[in-house]
Amino acid sequence: MHFFDRLADRIATADSVVSVGLDPDPARLPDSVLDADLPRWQFNRRIIDATHEHAACYKPNAAFYEDPDGWRALEETIAYAHGKNVPVLLDAKRGDIGNTARQYAQILDEDEGPAADAITVNPFLGRDSLEPFLQRADRGVFVLGRTSNPGGEDLQDLELASGEKLYERVVHLADLWNGNGNVGLVVGATNPDELEEIRELVPDIPFLVPGVGAQGGDAEAAVEHGLADGVGLVNSSRGIIFAGEDAATRRDDSGDAFFKAAGQSAKQLKQRLNQFR
Amino acid sequence: MHFFDRLADRIATADSVVSVGLDPDPARLPDSVLDADLPRWQFNRRIIDATHEHAACYKPNAAFYEDPDGWRALEETIAYAHGKNVPVLLDAKRGDIGNTARQYAQILDEDEGPAADAITVNPFLGRDSLEPFLQRADRGVFVLGRTSNPGGEDLQDLELASGEKLYERVVHLADLWNGNGNVGLVVGATNPDELEEIRELVPDIPFLVPGVGAQGGDAEAAVEHGLADGVGLVNSSRGIIFAGEDAATRRDDSGDAFFKAAGQSAKQLKQRLNQFR
Repeated sequence: MHFFDRLADRIATADSVVSVGLDPDPARLPDSVLDADLPRWQFNRRIIDATHEHAACYKPNAAFYEDPDGWRALEETIAYAHGKNVPVLLDAKRGDIGNTARQYAQILDEDEGPAADAITVNPFLGRDSLEPFLQRADRGVFVLGRTSNPGGEDLQDLELASGEKLYERVVHLADLWNGNGNVGLVVGATNPDELEEIRELVPDIPFLVPGVGAQGGDAEAAVEHGLADGVGLVNSSRGIIFAGEDAATRRDDSGDAFFKAAGQSAKQLKQRLNQFR
Repeated sequence: MHFFDRLADRIATADSVVSVGLDPDPARLPDSVLDADLPRWQFNRRIIDATHEHAACYKPNAAFYEDPDGWRALEETIAYAHGKNVPVLLDAKRGDIGNTARQYAQILDEDEGPAADAITVNPFLGRDSLEPFLQRADRGVFVLGRTSNPGGEDLQDLELASGEKLYERVVHLADLWNGNGNVGLVVGATNPDELEEIRELVPDIPFLVPGVGAQGGDAEAAVEHGLADGVGLVNSSRGIIFAGEDAATRRDDSGDAFFKAAGQSAKQLKQRLNQFR
């Protein structure tokens, strides 16, 4: 089954386009998980328990799992999310060539252990660097298109001789690379006009829109332009998973209040986004 | 001590600019390491034993270590290379924003376990995505400039309104980002004229030139243009580490012939490159 069909089913079931970012910064984990064998996995398990009813997908960022225990925690997390019928988008921003690209793509391969359903990739090395991902018609491939960080301008905003900006060219390339119908785009939420413009360039490609918090002002644009035929994702990471982060809840041995706050934050974001769907 | 000073010392000691790529493809490991607790680490240990006299650095590609045992193997490998006084350049091609970029940069931090001396990064997200790496004056940061894979043209060759090509712009940016004197560039070896042109743009930045085999025809250009004041790296991965890959040596229980061939290949590449230094 194609990734975006599975995602559409999940969006319908959860009545939500919320992507919950699982970025378990070790410095911010609550006391209640610190004694576990794998604190990051314990943290993610409780976040998933608290939020899965409101989650269209989980988006672990690979940066937070790059050590031996981290990869164990990530594999457990992927399996657990799947047990709740929630797909997993690995935010890895990978891009490399030849046999290395094929090796990176194994994270999408169930024969090698718990597998992500989709991944984010970096387009700078061009089509062949993404081919091992694109070939997997059952897996989603979200190409970085336009990021909203300050340095996003350094390359992405450069004007080409053709008159396009570089990010517009990347958006067109992503469309060309979409022969298997499994390509999405990562498009930042800070500039609603840009989001609208990119949507007009590629009417049929689902976006992953990061950077929308429960109280953010860009929720309407993220939903209006981020979804293609109702399918797309609006991500919040720290705004959900650390919503319960005040001194009292962090030190609470049970963790109940901490994780309850995460569940409430996910629900609030879902409801806020659903106003515009 | 600055990374490029340490690298210069190592180049002098080994009389070599060879970077040995440690890409332990599981499908190609010889029988002699398969019974080890961590076959990739056992493989790398024996490769390092066989090649370290000829190595200016080791370059593990992160793609081959992205699982729990893999990161253990990588950490052991880094520590072992350091024990032989050879620096380690982690070929990770990372690039992400904010707290995620800071998290990725921890692989350069000795407080977190064996640390790489340098890393490759992807410039697509711009300066702030690389800042946590650039800030580490004692660590090297090799920015992807021009890659020699077919898809390298998709973005890197695009002509800008300014008349530059995108890769030329990236090369200029890398120069701007070099306030700490710790920036290098990754420049492919397949087009000697391009290598020469990029060297003229940035006379002082060391290059990592991948894709030169022991028999490759581009060794001269890689050395002539890849080094800045004698400092730079020419990488070979499979051409060295799988040099002993024929049926007889692969099945040999001792592995002696297999790893001896790797040592010979590293030595041959060193000698070939040294003709042009």
